[in-house]
Formats: sequence, C-alpha cells, structure tokens
Amino acid sequence: MISGGAGVILKLVPVLSAASGGRGQGVICDCIRISPEYTKIHLMERTLVRDTPTKVGETVLLKGYVNTKRDHGKITFLDLRDRTGFIQVVGNGEEIASLKPECVVEITGLVKARPEKLVNTKIATGTVELEFKSVKVLAIPAELPFDMSKENLDLELPTLLDHRGLTLRHPKVAAIFKIQAVVIDAFRSALLAKEFIEFQAPSIISSVPEGGAEVFKVKYFDHETYLSQSPQLYKSLLVSAFERVFSVNQIFRAEPSVTTRHITEATSLDAEFGFIESYQEVMDMEEYVVRYIFAEVEKRCAPELALYTATLPTLSKKIPMLKLREAQEIIFKRTGRDCRNEKDLAPEDERDICTYTKEELGSDLVFISHFMTKKKPFYVYPDPADPEFAFSVDLLCRGVEWSSGGQRLNDYEAILKNVKDWGLKPEDIELYLQAFRYGTPPLGGFALGAERITMYILGLKNIREATMFPRDMERVDTRLGGKK
Amino acid sequence: MISGGAGVILKLVPVLSAASGGRGQGVICDCIRISPEYTKIHLMERTLVRDTPTKVGETVLLKGYVNTKRDHGKITFLDLRDRTGFIQVVGNGEEIASLKPECVVEITGLVKARPEKLVNTKIATGTVELEFKSVKVLAIPAELPFDMSKENLDLELPTLLDHRGLTLRHPKVAAIFKIQAVVIDAFRSALLAKEFIEFQAPSIISSVPEGGAEVFKVKYFDHETYLSQSPQLYKSLLVSAFERVFSVNQIFRAEPSVTTRHITEATSLDAEFGFIESYQEVMDMEEYVVRYIFAEVEKRCAPELALYTATLPTLSKKIPMLKLREAQEIIFKRTGRDCRNEKDLAPEDERDICTYTKEELGSDLVFISHFMTKKKPFYVYPDPADPEFAFSVDLLCRGVEWSSGGQRLNDYEAILKNVKDWGLKPEDIELYLQAFRYGTPPLGGFALGAERITMYILGLKNIREATMFPRDMERVDTRLGGKK
Repeated sequence: MISGGAGVILKLVPVLSAASGGRGQGVICDCIRISPEYTKIHLMERTLVRDTPTKVGETVLLKGYVNTKRDHGKITFLDLRDRTGFIQVVGNGEEIASLKPECVVEITGLVKARPEKLVNTKIATGTVELEFKSVKVLAIPAELPFDMSKENLDLELPTLLDHRGLTLRHPKVAAIFKIQAVVIDAFRSALLAKEFIEFQAPSIISSVPEGGAEVFKVKYFDHETYLSQSPQLYKSLLVSAFERVFSVNQIFRAEPSVTTRHITEATSLDAEFGFIESYQEVMDMEEYVVRYIFAEVEKRCAPELALYTATLPTLSKKIPMLKLREAQEIIFKRTGRDCRNEKDLAPEDERDICTYTKEELGSDLVFISHFMTKKKPFYVYPDPADPEFAFSVDLLCRGVEWSSGGQRLNDYEAILKNVKDWGLKPEDIELYLQAFRYGTPPLGGFALGAERITMYILGLKNIREATMFPRDMERVDTRLGGKK
Repeated sequence: MISGGAGVILKLVPVLSAASGGRGQGVICDCIRISPEYTKIHLMERTLVRDTPTKVGETVLLKGYVNTKRDHGKITFLDLRDRTGFIQVVGNGEEIASLKPECVVEITGLVKARPEKLVNTKIATGTVELEFKSVKVLAIPAELPFDMSKENLDLELPTLLDHRGLTLRHPKVAAIFKIQAVVIDAFRSALLAKEFIEFQAPSIISSVPEGGAEVFKVKYFDHETYLSQSPQLYKSLLVSAFERVFSVNQIFRAEPSVTTRHITEATSLDAEFGFIESYQEVMDMEEYVVRYIFAEVEKRCAPELALYTATLPTLSKKIPMLKLREAQEIIFKRTGRDCRNEKDLAPEDERDICTYTKEELGSDLVFISHFMTKKKPFYVYPDPADPEFAFSVDLLCRGVEWSSGGQRLNDYEAILKNVKDWGLKPEDIELYLQAFRYGTPPLGGFALGAERITMYILGLKNIREATMFPRDMERVDTRLGGKK
C-alpha cells in the first residue's frame, strides 16, 4: 500500500533558524516537509540500504539522498543513496513525485523481493525494492548546476573543483577518496604490524634545511618561518628514540608551475627505521608496504575500482631493482635515445624504463637506485664502492615516481661535513644534529605520496582529481583570481 | 665464556663518510669499532630484547643502545635498550668496560637464566641476563649534556625541549609519545568501526571563516592565505558526501600568549556525522570514542602508564551532562562564587564543576551544553526552546576543556543569514555553502586535542611535554631568540 495518493499536500513544517527562533518546535520537527503518516512510524530505527535485502516483508526507515528519479506515468522510481549503497524506491502520488535528485530524505516503506527477471545485478540491493510509504524531507536542494545523476559526471576539471561542495557526493568522485582512505589506512597498518610508531610531523619550521626557493613563508609573530616540505629530518632524528617511525602528514611545495602531477599541499606517507644492514632493507620494507596497500585496496575497494574499470599495478614476484646507470643503458639500447650521462631520469626516461620492466619483467613497478650524490640532499648515503652515486632509491610505477627514499648517513662527522659542503647552517637543524651527535644507528626510509598513488591506481589524468581540496598556484578551494 | 679479555684493543675500522669515499669498505664495515670475533657471528639474525627470556642457553645478537653502565670491580654491567625493552649484559674486559651510555651497539652474547634470588621483577627480561661475547659499535655519542641514565630526567622544561633530539629517547619521555600514538590510533579505530571515513584536512586556507586575529598568514605566490585553525567547515561539507568523516590533522593558532595549555600547532582529532536526531547523539558518539581511547590506552600502554603512576580518568556509567546555566548554579551553591550570569565558563569554573562531578557523580568527565549562541561560530545550532543558547557541547575532564562540538545548522537559509549576521563573506566559504545549498542532513561532531588528552592522562604540568616538537611564541624546535 502506498501512502499519500495524488493530490495530497504535504504538511509544511516551519524550518528552524536562528532568526525565527522556532521556540517549541523541538528537534523532531527539524525538517522541511513531512508526510501526515510520518510521525507515527518515525521512532523506527534507521535501516542502512545495504541491509534491506535481509528485511523482505518488513517496513523500514531509510535515510539518504535521492540519487536519481524516473517517472513512468503515475509511478515514480527513485534510487535512494546512503553511505552503504543504493536501493530502488517505487511509489505513486505527489509525495514521491515531488522529490528530486539530491533531496535529503527519510523514507519509510515496505521491502519487497523483486521478481527474478527484474533483479538488478548491477547493485548490491538488486534483489529487492522499497515500496514507498511516507517521507520526511530534511533538505531540498537548490537547482543543481549540472546533472548529478549521470553515471559519469563528465565535467571540465575547473568546474568539478569549483563545485567540490557538491561533486564529492557523486559516487564516482566519492570512490576516489574511499580508495585514498584505504591506501592511507593500509600504509599505517602495514607499518604498525612491523612495530613502527606513529608521530605527528610539525608543519611550521624555522628554517629551510634542504634549501630551495620552493617554500612558503609564514609570518610567525615577529619571526619568519616556513611550511615544511618534508618531515625527513624529524623522522630521521626520531629513529634514535623509537627505532621505527612513520607519519601521515601534509607537506607543502611552492612550486611555481602548473602541471598535472603537482599540487602545493599534499599528503605524505613517511617511514624511517634504524639498525638496517643496507639500503636493500629499505627497499624490502617499501615493497612490503606497497604490496600491503595493494592487497587492502583490492580486498576493501572492489566496488570503487569497478567504477573506474581500474586494475591495480602488476607486481612480479619481486619488484625489479636497477641502478640509474643501468636504467639509462637499457633506455639507450631499447630506444636509441642516449641519456647515459644525464644526472637524473627525465619524465620520458621514467616512462621508458617502466615500459621496459612491464614488458620484459612483468612489473608495473621498479626501484631505481644510485642517483648522483651531489644531486641529493646532504643526508644521502654515498655508495662506498663509488661515492659519486648514493644509496638513494626511487620507486617508479606506471611511468612516474611514486616515492623517494634510501639509506641516510648516520655518522655525525660525515653529516656535519656535508651540512657545510651543502651550504647549510648547523644551527638551523640543531635537533636533527643532536640525534646523530649522541648516536643514531644506520637508518633509512621512504616517502610515498597518497594522492599520486590514488591517481595512478585509478588512471586519473590529473592529481587534482585525486585531491579533495587541491591547492595550486591558481586555486585554494576556489580560484584565487580576484583575491590578493 | 667472555671474549676479549682486559687489554685487548678493538680493531679500528675507518668510518665511512662522503668525504673519505671509503671505496671498497662495503656496507658491513659501517661501524666505528668491532670485536675481532665479531664478523664470524655477524650473520646471525637480530634478536629483540623482549624475546631473550625464551632463548636461554642460546647465543644471540642484540642491537640497541647502552642505557646504563655499572662497574663492579672487573665486572661490567650494562643495561641494553632496544625498542622492545631492557636487558642486563654482564662481562669483563676492556671491550665492555669501554662502552658508555647512549653508545649504539650490536652485542652478541649468551642468554643465561638468573639465579632466582637475582631475578629483577622490575623489567620484563628480569629472569635472564646476557653474558657478553663481542660488540660492534655503530655510533659513539659525544659527551652527554646531562645524565640520560637516571630514572627521571628532572630537567627544566626549556632544557628538555632544547635537546629534543636526545631527550626523546629517554624511556619516560618516549612513553608520552607511545601513549599519544595509541590515543590517536584508538580515535581512528573507534570511528572506523562506526563506518566513518578518514579525510586529510588541508592546512592552507584562503580566508578566515571563523574570524579572529589569531591566525598565521602565509605568503602564497601573489596572494595572502592563512593556516587553518580547524577543519570544521571541511568536515561539515564532507558529511554531504560521506555521511561520517574524521580527520587527524595539524591545526594552527597564533595565540600571542604563553600558557601551560596552549601551543601554536596542535594535533586535532575531528569527527562529524549526519542524519543525527539531536545533539545528544553527538555526545553519545563522543563518549563512545573517549571510552574506546581509554580502553585502548589501558590495554596497550600499561608499562608506560606505570612510569608515571598515572591512572586513566574515572568514568561513571554515563558521562554526566549539564547545561551551562545548570553548571553555574551548582558552582554558586557549592562555592558561593556567583558566575550565574557569565557568558562562558572561566578556567576556575571548569575546575569547580569537574570537582563536583568527580565528588558527587564519580566522573572525571562532564559534558557542558547550551553555551551562548552569540559566543559561538555562525554554524552553531540554537536550541529551539531558547535560541539564546545553543546545542553546543564541551567535554571537560580533570578541570579543563578537552573538546568542543555539538549540532550544527544544516538549513541553508539559516546558515546564510548567520554568515551575514556574524559579519562573514559568503564567497569566502563557497564550498562549504554549496554542501548546504544542495542539501545536507542534520549533522554534528566534535574535536579532541591529542596533546591535551595525553597531558591530562599522564598528569603532565605543561602541554609542551606532551608535544614532540612544540611551537609557541618563543620556540619553533629551538628558541627563536636571535632569529628574525
């Protein structure tokens, strides 16, 4: 039985506001319209959409958004969306007909099994539908700036971002950040299982230890401070206290360039640990973490991956490892392009070497080690066999750098010499130097970018899509255009 | 059998440095001194200190720091410290005698059961000791600025913080941050179990939506931006996309005052959720989270709590709830001090009301609701029964505010009116407003401070002790004194 036939006018309930006061309305009336039948069944407990298939024959209360609406003559079909999925709601009459996409509603109705030929295998609740009984409208959306009910939003990137307060609720957009949350959670779980301790890296720093102009300045009372580009020095010094540490934190890069791969504020997944025997141990730990992340995403995000027809990066039995010079030699042999004397890998080189490992070794991922010591920060550990090159390791995947890391110097005198050679002031990194002055074991670590991992797992074209609230030269939430 | 008798000179191995190159030394020699016997047993796997009681009769390789050293005539006793605990090492001869506190070492030795009368019940490995065989010294500390081997460091706060690169490794200092890591991890676990999704709150914001001068300015290319004081608007707008969200992130307050409870950068534990029936549901969720945190700390941090003889806050069956005016009335009745017309609770009031709930209701915690609407931010939800007061809730514990939260407005027109009444510009919070313009359910949430929880669990006197790298008006890592 469907309540509220055609022509029934919903009872209007005054909207509470600070202005009107609304004295005496009580919390239960905090809605915009309510079915006459509603209050008597209101005290039911909420049923989550995903649980409806187990409640055939029961009247339930669902809460969520109208995702889509289809009118078939007098009958109205809704897809109701909550955090656990979608369900089809069927009814007739003005009440249900008046609902529109993105209405926030509480709906009561009877869960009915669908006839076998009408089962929708595309959604988890496809064996049932809800026969509409009554509705409480919690919020009526203003006219939408674009159709949110399409399977693909198909918006230009600036439009997508200018409307983040709306577009994030689109299932395909929301899926990106469900996956990102799992990536980050898996990173932590992997390291907790190896007895790493989490720390909170500070964002405000008093000097720029790794040099470079790409740093944001913060006016700090009467002083000038900066936003941290990396928690590197903190995680290294903490090895002396906890042996194994990790952090999930925001890092800041004032890169004055607009590319599809760079944002000014990003989420860095950092790990560092001591008593290592060699940089190989750092790669092994990173490989373990990356495998753990992929396994968790695969296990927990199947529906989200399916929305993108995305496949996780292919892993061979062991992630291949190449030295910079070996990689350059391979690129030369395969493409004829001679980068063998270059001091670093260019983006083109990164793509070529990933193509090689994918085609020849069956791996989307590859470690590149032995970058040039002088191109790296002062704490990099030179290979004793050829100190021009360092125990510095990047992880590449699908053509781009996912992380950098490696073994770090732990001998105080060697660090101090480099600090001076690199043109830094020891007093600017006093706490870091203390850890080594008073003894720190051999150590190493790595940092992964959460947005970049998300982007390359899903095959997104721009890192801004994989960032909830991307910041770049031209945007902090909305476009900076007129603001100074 | 103890290797290396008196008079044996350790083999000196050149220290690797970028300068000396060290070509050909290989990674295995990255140590400062090594016993002649060392290399032949070097390839053993590391045993963690906590596992030694299960290895009586075995020769094992331990890695860690010399924590303390006691010479008894020709016999030397060391306490070796690794991330899993302490063990006593016994030996004679120059090798072991030459080691000093904070030396980073790999030690091999024979695990021996202690005679029953010599069992040390204070440490987990007290049933065994290690008979010294050989050592590899990985790092020799410079002369320590103070005695690190004392049970209590007993340093003045500035000295403690000026040496964070060293003092964090003291077991009693490290314990603070092991507990903090568990607090944060428990906060997340509690909410993940309730299907909250984690997000990363941005730190750079383009405007100061909640007003106030206590904000840091960031030079952002050609624009002026700010550091976020709270992820409030982000977490609220995300409710429209994910229903339930939480974040662990740094927040920034440019408070120009030096107190024992304020720092300029803190770790905020934020939660927000939709489809609530009332602000009571927010308190229930917060109570659940706080109980979860206490339970995890109790379960996982017993040794750390013991170092401080700290007890977790006492919880009654349900955390008491009082309205602001009720609390003020109680204070007046109990103390004669009349704060009944004050617009907020003063620190003294917070202490008094906590004393009351502790003594009368057996609870260290108390919720205070119904603060004055006009004293709160624009999104606060006025009580319809008396809109001068709002569904705003603080959680107090042991005399101080631990969190603030409550129900938020979700009606777009009411929000828009308040934005104007509070003197804010709608265009500054466009993304936030979008969420409500296009429909958001009734919602609420809360924010807890990780450092403050840690401080009040352990009974620390200053929040800087509960912050790894505290920032305040006068300090960013080291004292800002000379720097401009």
